[in-house]
Amino acid sequence: MPHNNYLLQTRDIKFVIKEWLETERLLSMDAYKDYYGVDDFDSILDVNYKVCRDVMCPANKDADEIGMKFVGGNEQAVVSPESFKKVYNTVMEAGLGPQFGDRSAEGRMPLSWYAPILEMQTAASPAIVMFWCLTQGATTIIQYNCSEFLKNLFLPKMYTGEWAGTMCLTEPQAGSDLNAVATRAFPTDKKGIYKIKGQKCFITSGDHDLSKNIIHMVLAKTPDALPGTAGISLFIVPKFWVDENGNVGGWNDVTTVGIEHKMGLHGSSTCTLAFGENDNCYGYLVGEEPVGGRGKGLSYMFQMMNEERLNTGLFALGTITSAYYAALDYTKIRVQSPSFKNPKGPAVRIIEHEDVRRMLMYQKSCMEAIRALIYSTYFHVDLIHDSPDPAEREWADDVFMIQNPLCKAYSSDMAWLLTAEAIQCHGGYGYMEEYAPASLARDCKIYAIWEGTNFIQANDLTGRKFSMKKGEPFRKWVDAIGEFIAQKKTPEFANEFAMMEEAFATYKQILATNESWKATRPELTPLFATRILHATAMVKCGQLLLDQGLLAAKKLAELGEDHYDANFYKGKIASAKFYVMNVVPNVFGIDKAMKAADTSAIDLPEEAYM
Amino acid sequence: MPHNNYLLQTRDIKFVIKEWLETERLLSMDAYKDYYGVDDFDSILDVNYKVCRDVMCPANKDADEIGMKFVGGNEQAVVSPESFKKVYNTVMEAGLGPQFGDRSAEGRMPLSWYAPILEMQTAASPAIVMFWCLTQGATTIIQYNCSEFLKNLFLPKMYTGEWAGTMCLTEPQAGSDLNAVATRAFPTDKKGIYKIKGQKCFITSGDHDLSKNIIHMVLAKTPDALPGTAGISLFIVPKFWVDENGNVGGWNDVTTVGIEHKMGLHGSSTCTLAFGENDNCYGYLVGEEPVGGRGKGLSYMFQMMNEERLNTGLFALGTITSAYYAALDYTKIRVQSPSFKNPKGPAVRIIEHEDVRRMLMYQKSCMEAIRALIYSTYFHVDLIHDSPDPAEREWADDVFMIQNPLCKAYSSDMAWLLTAEAIQCHGGYGYMEEYAPASLARDCKIYAIWEGTNFIQANDLTGRKFSMKKGEPFRKWVDAIGEFIAQKKTPEFANEFAMMEEAFATYKQILATNESWKATRPELTPLFATRILHATAMVKCGQLLLDQGLLAAKKLAELGEDHYDANFYKGKIASAKFYVMNVVPNVFGIDKAMKAADTSAIDLPEEAYM
Repeated sequence: MPHNNYLLQTRDIKFVIKEWLETERLLSMDAYKDYYGVDDFDSILDVNYKVCRDVMCPANKDADEIGMKFVGGNEQAVVSPESFKKVYNTVMEAGLGPQFGDRSAEGRMPLSWYAPILEMQTAASPAIVMFWCLTQGATTIIQYNCSEFLKNLFLPKMYTGEWAGTMCLTEPQAGSDLNAVATRAFPTDKKGIYKIKGQKCFITSGDHDLSKNIIHMVLAKTPDALPGTAGISLFIVPKFWVDENGNVGGWNDVTTVGIEHKMGLHGSSTCTLAFGENDNCYGYLVGEEPVGGRGKGLSYMFQMMNEERLNTGLFALGTITSAYYAALDYTKIRVQSPSFKNPKGPAVRIIEHEDVRRMLMYQKSCMEAIRALIYSTYFHVDLIHDSPDPAEREWADDVFMIQNPLCKAYSSDMAWLLTAEAIQCHGGYGYMEEYAPASLARDCKIYAIWEGTNFIQANDLTGRKFSMKKGEPFRKWVDAIGEFIAQKKTPEFANEFAMMEEAFATYKQILATNESWKATRPELTPLFATRILHATAMVKCGQLLLDQGLLAAKKLAELGEDHYDANFYKGKIASAKFYVMNVVPNVFGIDKAMKAADTSAIDLPEEAYM
Repeated sequence: MPHNNYLLQTRDIKFVIKEWLETERLLSMDAYKDYYGVDDFDSILDVNYKVCRDVMCPANKDADEIGMKFVGGNEQAVVSPESFKKVYNTVMEAGLGPQFGDRSAEGRMPLSWYAPILEMQTAASPAIVMFWCLTQGATTIIQYNCSEFLKNLFLPKMYTGEWAGTMCLTEPQAGSDLNAVATRAFPTDKKGIYKIKGQKCFITSGDHDLSKNIIHMVLAKTPDALPGTAGISLFIVPKFWVDENGNVGGWNDVTTVGIEHKMGLHGSSTCTLAFGENDNCYGYLVGEEPVGGRGKGLSYMFQMMNEERLNTGLFALGTITSAYYAALDYTKIRVQSPSFKNPKGPAVRIIEHEDVRRMLMYQKSCMEAIRALIYSTYFHVDLIHDSPDPAEREWADDVFMIQNPLCKAYSSDMAWLLTAEAIQCHGGYGYMEEYAPASLARDCKIYAIWEGTNFIQANDLTGRKFSMKKGEPFRKWVDAIGEFIAQKKTPEFANEFAMMEEAFATYKQILATNESWKATRPELTPLFATRILHATAMVKCGQLLLDQGLLAAKKLAELGEDHYDANFYKGKIASAKFYVMNVVPNVFGIDKAMKAADTSAIDLPEEAYM
């Protein structure tokens, strides 16, 4: 069954990492120079590919059809399908899980190499990756903010996956709004250890039977906490208590109340957790003691959150990738209807039909655009950590801050559209769960919601990111797109550069329109923020794909038409052209709508919505 | 649980039927004048509303969660959830099912009155309506093409729902391509009775336990049939044989081989049927005997198909409606985050947030746009049947032919986007199956595929419909939009008319660009057909909503701000403005892309898709 076919192709992944990004320069930096050459990437990718194809992908059917089961009880309330154990253990043994989170390890890999690994794993099974991705996020917080004592207590077993991790922010009464956190943390006799009481919901991998312990990162407020987010602290709350000597003790009063019945990602347990129902739940404080009721919990959590936002972009990309290759495969074998140019002729494979080509190229070019955007953002995260040049580190951080909301929101919004195109490519069979796209569409919808809804991303972009450091980094980021267009123009892509030029000028109009609202009509910005984010992402992706197209054209000229790799480069050129000429023009409509500045949605009284 | 809440509001439905469309003139025509006044619509709608709310909607949970079960065996291979029986019987007793199909009945209702009934039923349960919609389609074919003998044999019991009906076109090797029909029909000793042999798949309501018999309308080829679609004939093949005297005999060798495991519409059985596995399956020929191997099956089937395409638009609308009202309800009660204008203030209900307003108004305005489009198309179908003026009948038929692909494809493409917005309005809860939108999104996806994929609709529009009768009707249809814009301009909607003027001029450019490809680059038309269809629908919907907005403004002026209905009219004005200023501008991007005429998707060799 196609559900179990791992059809992903790695050629574009290798192009991005080995040919397009400055990986060689990155690998010359201290953290990597003694360990990796560019070609080492191939063998790492190869191991991951085999694990994805032979172990993860076959379990995805169980993920969707059996899913996680809530059985209740204290110590093991949620059980996974039998096939998951092998997947989890294989990934851990192969070092393809939370190990990547260890930023201090000798011989660690660049995060830009981790990106394709996670994309491929998600393509194999969007649900199962959740069991180690959150662990990795939790290790990020611990390694950067905890004492050596706590690091030694938790990190080694989390990196190997023996213990898993979670991220406990949301509470039933407070979804995206962390001001309303009501979970409490009471000091105990032991410094740094608190008694925890409260309920959290929507906790991904909140309980399961794949690891021996689960380490929850829990936002809570101490008794003297300031109101709002300023009072929030962060605690490490293990499912089974871990004492100061590293011994695992009894159950730590973390009760799984239930799991959610979701549209997709059935193989990932989304839990409601009650901490301290029996007044017997303890946690270690992360970082410094709160002073004057002021906790640093949220800033710690945001390190993880920022990482998870970027990861969410990758999850979305993984579903897009998997759906595209399933569609491509199907359209190459399905025979139906004569071609448009030979209507009396025989039925042809549907990949020969123009509209099917449009759908395939739409998927292919957007997949590559989103991959370019996300991988290059991960590359900037590597530079933040590893560049020897402080100015470059600062600029890399600026780029990450600006591009992270694009990675999260544009990718996840597009995943809904692109998985639908993959369904459509399958005709009636696309609606059947035996084929890959249906479950991928169901799986991907959550990415537009979690880790901050896509509007929160748009608000972050048009609010914080446009104006951070007095707006200087964002201006520089925009100008770089303009400079690219002005400087890289070539006859081979004359039409595409002309389109980008017009689109970029229009995008600057969009920014100017938004700016003009600031003083007197600030409420127009959130009304249009989602569209501004989309316009920003499309213009940026147009630049990135065109840049890749230029490189592909150069390589093709060098290698010649007869080279075995010529088709790949032709495909890259086509993706760049298609995206710029068919997707980027959406900015023109957004510009018109913004200039029209229609406020009927907010002017209309609520009672008139009917 | 919201799953069981029927939140639909009927005010806009009544506005369209009773205030906007020329229903009074329609009711003055012979078929209706002795039976109905405009206000009779209210009581009919009211009965339907109660059945939807109290009987259908509560069964929708069973539809999705239990679904249809395949148990095998000959006489009853598929069973429905227990709750379906009550639904089916109630709808039949209330006369809200296939009865509408009887176009010769005394006192029949206009089809434009049937449209809201079906929309509301779909909103209550998208799956369950399938059990009577296909029956109605089958009766359409029989009443227009069969002898009095066959009509008397089948129609009375089909109108009451005692017998259900299906539409058997698709075969495993031939999805959308009817050239490839391989089911055979062999003449027997009895004139008009044929032996049937072959397999059909994706047959909606192909087997179930809600009616005493199922009457399949089956496309098949006689032994001397011409190749291709010209050779196709149509047969009435009952599940249990009906003899010439109307007696129901034994099982007619129609085997249900299995049912599909679908993404949505779990409560509708999608069957693979084998006819004549034991060489004992018989059918009555519809219409005249084939002459010279030429059958009329396809033209008969297309009467049903055209109707089902329009119905599919309504199904999509029903899911949009249901999802919107669920979202509206949720956003009015969910409290989260302070408002943008008062960031230090208390958390507010999310309907007070600008982006939530945008999502709600997007749903509301598109819902009303699609309703205006579809109901007015049904109104034209009424005119085809009932107008005393032959010129009006002809024009109504032209309008129906042009608008039908828009109704089918635009509505179903939008349903995927709009149900996703409803999910997004629910935040994390939107991903949970306990809330309405998730299943509605899963349900609606098939509408873009069945009854001719949405590309087939786009191809039909840009091929047949643009050029039928030498292009005269389409030109007239387009000109009518231009005349509306030129003639109806008022200061109250000055900005909206200006936008429509520009959008319409741009749409004419789109048509001109398409026309310019005819001679030398005809393959560009199918490459852009989907986008041309969307542009056509948006411009038309802009006109229709603006027309409704003008009427609403007039009514509001008459009634005054303090009238209890003032809010409704304000909402109509807002919908018109929002749609014209925010949705219609998408045509500008389509125009740019068409002028760019990028052919990379079809130029790229297939091997380079990777």
